[in-house]
Amino acid sequence: MFYNSYDTICAISTPPGQGGIAVIRISGCEAFSICNKIFKSCNNFPLGAGRVGANLSFGHIFRGDEIFDEVLVSSFYAPRSYTGENVVEISCHGSLYIQQEILKLLLSNGCRLAAAGEFTQRAFFNGKLDLSQAEAVGDLIAASSAMSHRVAMQQMRGGFSNELDALREKLLDFTSLVELELDFADDDVEFADRKQLMKLAQQIADVIRRLTDSFGAGNAIKNGIPVTIAGATNVGKSTLLNSLLRDEKAIVSDVHGTTRDVIEDAITIDGLMFRFIDTAGIRATKDAIEQLGIERTFQKIEQAAIVLWVIDLTSDTRENTQIISHSEGKKLILTLNKADMLTDEEREQKTEYYRRLHDDFIVISAKSDADIAALERKLLETANIPHIGASDVIVTNLRHYEALKEAQSAIENVIEGLEAGITGDFLALDIRECLSHLNKITGKQISTDDVLGNIFSKFCIGK
Amino acid sequence: MFYNSYDTICAISTPPGQGGIAVIRISGCEAFSICNKIFKSCNNFPLGAGRVGANLSFGHIFRGDEIFDEVLVSSFYAPRSYTGENVVEISCHGSLYIQQEILKLLLSNGCRLAAAGEFTQRAFFNGKLDLSQAEAVGDLIAASSAMSHRVAMQQMRGGFSNELDALREKLLDFTSLVELELDFADDDVEFADRKQLMKLAQQIADVIRRLTDSFGAGNAIKNGIPVTIAGATNVGKSTLLNSLLRDEKAIVSDVHGTTRDVIEDAITIDGLMFRFIDTAGIRATKDAIEQLGIERTFQKIEQAAIVLWVIDLTSDTRENTQIISHSEGKKLILTLNKADMLTDEEREQKTEYYRRLHDDFIVISAKSDADIAALERKLLETANIPHIGASDVIVTNLRHYEALKEAQSAIENVIEGLEAGITGDFLALDIRECLSHLNKITGKQISTDDVLGNIFSKFCIGK
Repeated sequence: MFYNSYDTICAISTPPGQGGIAVIRISGCEAFSICNKIFKSCNNFPLGAGRVGANLSFGHIFRGDEIFDEVLVSSFYAPRSYTGENVVEISCHGSLYIQQEILKLLLSNGCRLAAAGEFTQRAFFNGKLDLSQAEAVGDLIAASSAMSHRVAMQQMRGGFSNELDALREKLLDFTSLVELELDFADDDVEFADRKQLMKLAQQIADVIRRLTDSFGAGNAIKNGIPVTIAGATNVGKSTLLNSLLRDEKAIVSDVHGTTRDVIEDAITIDGLMFRFIDTAGIRATKDAIEQLGIERTFQKIEQAAIVLWVIDLTSDTRENTQIISHSEGKKLILTLNKADMLTDEEREQKTEYYRRLHDDFIVISAKSDADIAALERKLLETANIPHIGASDVIVTNLRHYEALKEAQSAIENVIEGLEAGITGDFLALDIRECLSHLNKITGKQISTDDVLGNIFSKFCIGK
Repeated sequence: MFYNSYDTICAISTPPGQGGIAVIRISGCEAFSICNKIFKSCNNFPLGAGRVGANLSFGHIFRGDEIFDEVLVSSFYAPRSYTGENVVEISCHGSLYIQQEILKLLLSNGCRLAAAGEFTQRAFFNGKLDLSQAEAVGDLIAASSAMSHRVAMQQMRGGFSNELDALREKLLDFTSLVELELDFADDDVEFADRKQLMKLAQQIADVIRRLTDSFGAGNAIKNGIPVTIAGATNVGKSTLLNSLLRDEKAIVSDVHGTTRDVIEDAITIDGLMFRFIDTAGIRATKDAIEQLGIERTFQKIEQAAIVLWVIDLTSDTRENTQIISHSEGKKLILTLNKADMLTDEEREQKTEYYRRLHDDFIVISAKSDADIAALERKLLETANIPHIGASDVIVTNLRHYEALKEAQSAIENVIEGLEAGITGDFLALDIRECLSHLNKITGKQISTDDVLGNIFSKFCIGK
């Protein structure tokens, strides 16, 4: 839905909870006048009084006659603000009580609570960002690895939009050539050299294909690469997982009370996130209930891109080799564990057996730091994500991917049409369709309010 | 311990976790030069270059050559900042990854991580706040009710310090009178009229007593009033607790994802916090294990200021009246529940029975909003906390209370001395002792680094 942008909106923009300070953001026509009702700066200069640009004021929030908090207020004059409207940011003391009370004061003085993503949505409506850039703001905040951060930052800074604009321009050149021809349809002339058109269409198709092809890597970068650790009970799956997670946990807890709940059981290797999907151990039994556990493991394998099949080299129990057939289409790594507990000869013999089962394997001890490092390199190599430079354009958003796929199909119709020698008016239709799909990405052409509502509702509140 | 204030410190000041934005604070001599290594403002004006006062700059954080984030930077020139040093506050996008990476960039460029409360500690060292005001900053951030907020705000704004300063002045008047006398000791004159001295000493003692007396209310206001809900199983304790909490939860969840974990099972009535201590139900049994449960209930009663003994009026089971004897010294309210399920006559009869057991009771149905409101009024009345005006000085801090108690004992020695007609030199000793205890509160006179370390280590990091 479209929000009435005459409303002045407010929200807590900092993470929920208690901290040293918190920031409450207000945006809209009445941002200054509403804040002036509850805030007095120490220099008695009201917000919005004649000054331009961005200003900092120290002063007090009043609740009635009572001084409620000492705050620092940043004020931004339209259009030079995040949303393009008048914006006020109140840095208050970070108790939950203070945050809530200031919000209540704002609400009772004429603000309304911002919906999720509404500040960014207003930035979009006011032309501060295009739609793909606005979406990247959400991705940036959710980014938890170096690579996903880099891709979101590149998109937010307009890298993807520039690429699309270049495509649009090419398509517009194309249509102008074809449509000129249409004006003279009766004369049966061809202004547009068909060979030249074909070359242009193929260039466009190449760029779109490169973008859609990048979605595989983009999706892996954005959402992390799902890895299922499968194997029998007592082969050391938990030890392995803990060894993989150990470094990560240490790093995260170094930097004060950061919560890990958003990235449960995930590690980043070289800036790339791997998400681990836990499975119950498979026991070698014909019991029906146990079979259920095996079925569940196979379901977890379904969700994975990489399967780590952990095997205890010291055990003589027959492994459930069904894992191999169920990992078809996935990247399966046999992880031959507890290698430190065997003699060289035994290890060689056992390894040889498993080598014949599956050719992609690694011999480790989950307790050895060097082996865990080797396994990490193996995971990185198996994931096979190309190196992403700071200026590379990668598609990470399903909505963009789908629009690009439709653009691709439209431009392929153009190429087929050119090959079949169809007339300019039919070509023009397909080109226009291709254009409209690209425009959907940057928001130049939006079909319904639902699309926008869906995009911004996934944001956190306060952004 | 004292920190080397030549260090430049940094920390995340906003609540831990992910949000729209986060704020990283940097303070110290090198704050501008370190930030200039990783930040470039869009107008190419480096931080700290010739401008005074507080400034806002929009620009980018760089990691090497890569643009890492778009940020808003507030810079404050010493001494016009929170700490009295050069201060920079970076408002970055609120992903955990970005927060951590910017912190890492600052650390690798010469900052060190701030200890808990270190920013406020520096403000204290630089004379921005006295010690009791600095402590109030911590209290303010922890305050979760209107009353505790008001008391902390009053203390932070120097209300308590002013009261202590007035006391100090009186004491200094006193000593100057007495010590003048000492200079002429050989002449055996009394410049100081003993009656006037006595009047002054009693005034001082009155003020100190008023302050120490306020600690009972102050402590209840700051930490909430502990309420134990006791009673047999199935008398409706959980329903009652849920009814009491319902409004609170609704209010809290109104204001986006605020976590309730800091104020588990607490409600505020008229700005005063009541903390509920859960107990297992007591079953009427002689089983040894069950007896253990009863013992635990009695232990929970120990922690309470108010005991709500919930009784099911519809039940004919004999109640465990030991609760009454175990509630000695507490405020016990018999909460006669399920009143809606009885006829008027039955209710009257049952109530009469319990009235004879204990005279403080309330008849309710936990499902009735009106009854819950009545119970809330009853709790408020029972807590009997005097109304605190915005300018009333209340002692909430145990350290202050203990210092005041010692000052009280010293001033009482002075009064006894005056009554016994002791000489000026002995009086002067006790007056000086009284002064030194008051000075400990505002930090004018600090005994050891341990005291400071202890005070600031309870702060959250980033403040």
